[in-house]
Amino acid sequence: MLERIRIVLIGTSHPGNIGGVARAMHNMGLADLALVAPRCEVITQDSISRASGADHLLHQASVHATLEEAVADCTLTVGASARSRTLPWPMLSPRELADRLPAECQAAESRVALVFGREDSGLTNAELQRCHAHVHIPTNADFSSLNLAAAVQVLAYECRMAWLSQADAPSAAPSDDAELATHAELERYFEHLERTLIGIDFHDPDQPRQLMARLRRLYLRARPERMEMNILRGILSATEKAANTRQTK
Amino acid sequence: MLERIRIVLIGTSHPGNIGGVARAMHNMGLADLALVAPRCEVITQDSISRASGADHLLHQASVHATLEEAVADCTLTVGASARSRTLPWPMLSPRELADRLPAECQAAESRVALVFGREDSGLTNAELQRCHAHVHIPTNADFSSLNLAAAVQVLAYECRMAWLSQADAPSAAPSDDAELATHAELERYFEHLERTLIGIDFHDPDQPRQLMARLRRLYLRARPERMEMNILRGILSATEKAANTRQTK
Repeated sequence: MLERIRIVLIGTSHPGNIGGVARAMHNMGLADLALVAPRCEVITQDSISRASGADHLLHQASVHATLEEAVADCTLTVGASARSRTLPWPMLSPRELADRLPAECQAAESRVALVFGREDSGLTNAELQRCHAHVHIPTNADFSSLNLAAAVQVLAYECRMAWLSQADAPSAAPSDDAELATHAELERYFEHLERTLIGIDFHDPDQPRQLMARLRRLYLRARPERMEMNILRGILSATEKAANTRQTK
Repeated sequence: MLERIRIVLIGTSHPGNIGGVARAMHNMGLADLALVAPRCEVITQDSISRASGADHLLHQASVHATLEEAVADCTLTVGASARSRTLPWPMLSPRELADRLPAECQAAESRVALVFGREDSGLTNAELQRCHAHVHIPTNADFSSLNLAAAVQVLAYECRMAWLSQADAPSAAPSDDAELATHAELERYFEHLERTLIGIDFHDPDQPRQLMARLRRLYLRARPERMEMNILRGILSATEKAANTRQTK
């Protein structure tokens, strides 16, 4: 299970924090570290010192230009977030997330991404809207900004607790043989959806209101299977065809 | 409850770690920090920088010559420890400890001490034997030494979770005032969806396969809100209009 969990750091600016994250991950048995557009050197004296023996995770880390790329193969993407946002999104506590992990990680091709934002500003709304759910670490309302490595430590600890509890227990999760759509498949769907909605004059990208965000939230919440994704894309193609074909009559 | 929990650090040698501990404590709502025979300056640039706004905990921290003195008024003393010791002692997981905290902290005069040892060598056997119980944070067997601030973070997080669960404290759930679509609204949507899919030649009711069943399952799983239902119906109307309008050109 733990090998199917990826820690994704976006726009990190302090090498020491990346090192601290590597140490926290290795302590808890996680190994898959992905860095999106880091704003600092990854391998420095500081990061190696803070990694304190876990620096192989720094060397192995994958580096990506975009979040898209870092989570393309992921079947569940969860963003670490403060509580209140303009558009409420499914919100989990770290423990609720942990409770879901054994089932989420059951299939061999499953990959779970836990996404952490910049030290100073967290994740952007666009990044948060690429996530199936958000996880909020409960904190003191007066002092809520956790150190990046500390936040990873808490979630990695919950991952390990979930793993230990299922390692003890007889595998409780029912085998669900339906394959979930990957992040990349979902994003292709959202692109296709937006294009189609523009085509049928339902959506004006110059006045987006929150249309695409609302649709993202709805479909991400449903956790579409690959087969369902194919049906939905088929509907979009048929919509485009009906609108176009008849246009050119 | 949280104000009755004291974090005790013995023989810490890096100011940055004390600062990181202060930040982790304040993030989780703990405030009582006791330092036993620190092997470094407490207030330094490094400790203040790592405390990141929680440096009042550094200034308020009590400093003691011995563990005895630091926990003299405590009703429960728990030492953080690696698992195996020559003399077996009552051993708790962080979660088991957390489960006991509400009861342990009930009396006004109760005080719980969570004791952490030196960065390089932990707690001595003599110190461990002054504790009622030991708490072991589960770690990777090959890489078990947690950073001091990370270890405090994990236990402080469990303290906060225990407090939240007993306190009925600020409800953790986001206020979810969105109204769900009613059964009737959902059924009207499915009728409209089927009509539209027939109209764009995607669906043949004489050869239904399981199309509508699959779509029902998907949308019902998402528990659509009324507002989302309105958007989806708007998309169907726009689809019909795009297909028809252009047909009659």
